[in-house]
Amino acid sequence: MRHPLETVSKKLGLHFKNLGLLKTALTHRSAEGENNERLEFLGDSALGFIIAECLYQKFPDADEGTLSRLRADLVNEASLANLARALNLGSYLILGSGELKSGGYRRDSILSDALEAIIGAIAKDQGLDACRQWVLQLFALRLAELSLQNWKKDPKTRLQELMQARRLELPEYTLKAMLGEPHQQSFCVECRVSALAEASEGIGSSRKRAEQQAAEKILLKLSAHSETV
Amino acid sequence: MRHPLETVSKKLGLHFKNLGLLKTALTHRSAEGENNERLEFLGDSALGFIIAECLYQKFPDADEGTLSRLRADLVNEASLANLARALNLGSYLILGSGELKSGGYRRDSILSDALEAIIGAIAKDQGLDACRQWVLQLFALRLAELSLQNWKKDPKTRLQELMQARRLELPEYTLKAMLGEPHQQSFCVECRVSALAEASEGIGSSRKRAEQQAAEKILLKLSAHSETV
Repeated sequence: MRHPLETVSKKLGLHFKNLGLLKTALTHRSAEGENNERLEFLGDSALGFIIAECLYQKFPDADEGTLSRLRADLVNEASLANLARALNLGSYLILGSGELKSGGYRRDSILSDALEAIIGAIAKDQGLDACRQWVLQLFALRLAELSLQNWKKDPKTRLQELMQARRLELPEYTLKAMLGEPHQQSFCVECRVSALAEASEGIGSSRKRAEQQAAEKILLKLSAHSETV
Repeated sequence: MRHPLETVSKKLGLHFKNLGLLKTALTHRSAEGENNERLEFLGDSALGFIIAECLYQKFPDADEGTLSRLRADLVNEASLANLARALNLGSYLILGSGELKSGGYRRDSILSDALEAIIGAIAKDQGLDACRQWVLQLFALRLAELSLQNWKKDPKTRLQELMQARRLELPEYTLKAMLGEPHQQSFCVECRVSALAEASEGIGSSRKRAEQQAAEKILLKLSAHSETV
């Protein structure tokens, strides 16, 4: 470990009673010693609750579906990895030599897991109140940016409205595959818009969910290539 | 509402500051007025965290996969509905006339949602500490019954050991289908054992996860028809 734990704790704005927990939170399973997977389990659920509680209070008019979508937008591997990068977490990770060589400290999954593990470590070390305080500070900017306006509508609706506003053809959805037993099926739907050469696929437990996921991916691609539409 | 809210609150062992939250928690979306879906969102995540924290402490040697399985066994629609029945929750529900006629107060999904909403209402009304106390009392028996012994092993291993112990042929796994883009695939695997005429299918984001799910289903079927093996 290149940085003393006290320094890391301070840099992260934390005050661990038991610094061993911070070390565990930073230890990927590829390294020797106790790794961060148990703390990640704890942190994942603490984070889920803290964000749920915050959204519940912040948006008294949002229905359950909107709250779920807002949370999924805030708490996902890519967004957690970006927050971890802002904390410079990659340079504090304890990785096995293989992961170190292959640049594991840059990987979304490793960064996001470590961030969840740190959240779990705070919950365990200092209780949920301290954990909530740190998490809400970490998410402060993203929470401030959140506007309900864009989230009351589901991805299919938003995509349709975007296409209409730009006078483009409406998106086309095609069912590509279905599998599983009747009570537990999985649907794969393709969504295609004229503005993008490539289609996107969504997978879900209902055709509608699969369509929503595919629409969401198209929206992401469109915002990434906004010059093309 | 057949029972005054004060009575219901007392019967559930609760002390609401704001009894309106309890009323909301008991109100299904089929009824008029504010329904319990937002509180269910909050309660679901509070319950997830409380059980995660409890399992983390109770089983210091369990890895993350075991903790997840233990939690999934404790917190699922069927088990929550059973706890709701033990609390006599069905008779306190506020349902629309359609759901009332069709016996909605007996339905697993409605009961389990209402229980989660009550947990959310306690978290909102009295904070997480009071909520934790109530939830852990509710789950006390089930938590006491939990033994790590049976959970350290994953379903495939348990199924294999069961077949070996009974001198039966080992389970056969067949990949039935794969779908989705490379970074987000869905696998469907069939598991077949000689003791059962019907195979079971599992779906998962990796072949191994699909196999584990299929094995778990076979284990459930075998325990339901234990006379046949």
